[in-house]
Amino acid sequence: MGDARQYFALPSPFAMKRGGELHDAHVAFETWGTLNAARDNAVLILTGLSPSAHAASNAHDDSPGWWEAMLGDGKAIDTSRWFVICVNSLGSDKGSTCPASIDPATGEVYRLSFPDLSLEDVANAAHAAVSSLGIAQLACLIGCSMGGMSALAYMLLHPGSARSHISVDTAPQAQPFAIAIRSLQREAIRLDPNWKDGNYDIQEGMSAASAPKRGTQKAGAGCAGAADIHVEEGGTYPDIGMSIARKLGVITYRSAMEWNGRFARIRLDPEQRDDDPFGREFQVESYLEGHAQRFVRTFDPNSYLYLSRASDWFDMAEYGHGSVHEGLKRIQIERAMVIGVSTDILFPLQQQEQIAEGLEAAGADVEFVALDSPQGHDAFLVDIENYSKAIGGFLRRIS
Amino acid sequence: MGDARQYFALPSPFAMKRGGELHDAHVAFETWGTLNAARDNAVLILTGLSPSAHAASNAHDDSPGWWEAMLGDGKAIDTSRWFVICVNSLGSDKGSTCPASIDPATGEVYRLSFPDLSLEDVANAAHAAVSSLGIAQLACLIGCSMGGMSALAYMLLHPGSARSHISVDTAPQAQPFAIAIRSLQREAIRLDPNWKDGNYDIQEGMSAASAPKRGTQKAGAGCAGAADIHVEEGGTYPDIGMSIARKLGVITYRSAMEWNGRFARIRLDPEQRDDDPFGREFQVESYLEGHAQRFVRTFDPNSYLYLSRASDWFDMAEYGHGSVHEGLKRIQIERAMVIGVSTDILFPLQQQEQIAEGLEAAGADVEFVALDSPQGHDAFLVDIENYSKAIGGFLRRIS
Repeated sequence: MGDARQYFALPSPFAMKRGGELHDAHVAFETWGTLNAARDNAVLILTGLSPSAHAASNAHDDSPGWWEAMLGDGKAIDTSRWFVICVNSLGSDKGSTCPASIDPATGEVYRLSFPDLSLEDVANAAHAAVSSLGIAQLACLIGCSMGGMSALAYMLLHPGSARSHISVDTAPQAQPFAIAIRSLQREAIRLDPNWKDGNYDIQEGMSAASAPKRGTQKAGAGCAGAADIHVEEGGTYPDIGMSIARKLGVITYRSAMEWNGRFARIRLDPEQRDDDPFGREFQVESYLEGHAQRFVRTFDPNSYLYLSRASDWFDMAEYGHGSVHEGLKRIQIERAMVIGVSTDILFPLQQQEQIAEGLEAAGADVEFVALDSPQGHDAFLVDIENYSKAIGGFLRRIS
Repeated sequence: MGDARQYFALPSPFAMKRGGELHDAHVAFETWGTLNAARDNAVLILTGLSPSAHAASNAHDDSPGWWEAMLGDGKAIDTSRWFVICVNSLGSDKGSTCPASIDPATGEVYRLSFPDLSLEDVANAAHAAVSSLGIAQLACLIGCSMGGMSALAYMLLHPGSARSHISVDTAPQAQPFAIAIRSLQREAIRLDPNWKDGNYDIQEGMSAASAPKRGTQKAGAGCAGAADIHVEEGGTYPDIGMSIARKLGVITYRSAMEWNGRFARIRLDPEQRDDDPFGREFQVESYLEGHAQRFVRTFDPNSYLYLSRASDWFDMAEYGHGSVHEGLKRIQIERAMVIGVSTDILFPLQQQEQIAEGLEAAGADVEFVALDSPQGHDAFLVDIENYSKAIGGFLRRIS
């Protein structure tokens, strides 16, 4: 397993929506397939809150990516035809400049001195990276979950930057239920005494090192951009807060219906339990614990807080004089597919309908796909059969 | 505001389902209306996890109860006709023996030495209290939320103890989504360093004092059963864990639909915010904080853990050789009304249908009421119009 990340140095200073600016910042990205001579076969993927740019295995990194089943030669997002780019969100610790990065002005890790981050900044950073590759217009912009919100911002702020769009399980604005969930996740982290107002020990692998040199870096050279700060085992870290935040995330990413079939009331074997009188007893509790353990020390808590809050702030109504519909109507694309899932409690189907209606009113040719996948919000990562069919079909039909 | 609680001393020892036993234990209850000479006009209400026995104001306590709009002279549960009893669950700190009570064997607060509590124990304690009033058969047994599960146990374990039943927003067994939510709530409390393995400072007002003398006590005398332990302001207490648990509870008790209409994306006024960069910004966050602040120090954390776990354990399938339906078929009543809400994510409508089908298969005359109230699980506390109509109508039709 190598490292396929390339790095794009953002214009410096990089001005941010809410008034801050970053100096010598960069975003990580990976690519698959070949950009054609006309440079018109590019597909950009913008990700959810936690995934990296490693959407699938490639020549430099053969480890499976987070959308491995969807992306590759002959797959729904067919890399024999498309030049696919996946950008790690600005503010994410998976290679891009984030609150765990070093502020060149001080030589210290940003932590909470990182400027206010919005999804518009995530979109602008991704757009700059795509432009640096000589791509004036994407054949398709795909956004999943939080990345779907970033994609709306991308298309609105950069008219003509994409011919078509696939919107996956996302929202044109954060609604109060989602805000409540994310607010509680942030609170669990912030109230953990080991968060220390953001001054916990940054973990190895989070991008806390200095930014790579300006200009697009090749993989390998770019790796130096990732953190090499060494921390002792343990250290001060908000494990509890991060664990609660992640478990709450997983609960809202899936669905009750799926779990009825999958876990029902199955108990853990006695040897899987601990002595704690209130410890894990049911399989569903063990499942959550597994998810939490894999996440807690692999995502930088401050970066999580920044991206989570950016999701709450996102609101297409800001661009439509208070109306989501009017905001969406300002997006200029030719075609779109909007996919949603009836079991998604975090980004409910009604919000997908809102996006479809808005893009249609804007003049796009819109296909709306409502799935009944039992897996809830995460269906796009699990129900590969139905998502492949929808996304693959759409991409085969576009030029 | 007085205190209308009466206390019933449970048989001592009081044997519990999972093998433990309590000595000199008691439950608190309140009553409204008059028991007739035939002693056949009694209605018992079993409550959700957190409410007290004070369902409505009465002569001894004129403060509004948790079901004030539903219960009283001429209301849906008409106290001019019915003798209504509301029992505080065994294990709850609102006057009944609970983990914050003093163990007579040691003179110390039980805390985690309290025996394993199940909803069958809650049901048995309530049945004993009702029997002590000379009531052989309830005209109707009403159970809301967790109390609906206790009610199923009550009817199953005490055949002939009720002629009719009203089941409100409950479940015949805990499903994995609800288990996951409750497990995470318990974890938030347990991981709070100030929980101290259950050894935090018990708060004034929680029932930590010794049990009242044996026998049914009159209000006033019975008040001595409530705690008088004085704690200093502050002290060691798992405020953070309780706050997270409560907020997560409120999120799952309500519905996204209600909040879209009620909070949308309304911001707090600047003076309502704090300086914390990740502090509250949206009204929905302030709403959750208000709920948490009212709850955190008014419900004993260990009692919360015990009742929460009891809810996870409850499973009618235990009584039906692994089948919920067969378990429900063992319940003997004449008539039932089963009410559920389509927006309830914690006790979904399908579980209400399961109860209705089971009771029907058992031979009861069952009315099933599916409401579309937007308030989610809490609709029974908020959508008084529809619940009054259903419950009032049912009670008027029964003899």
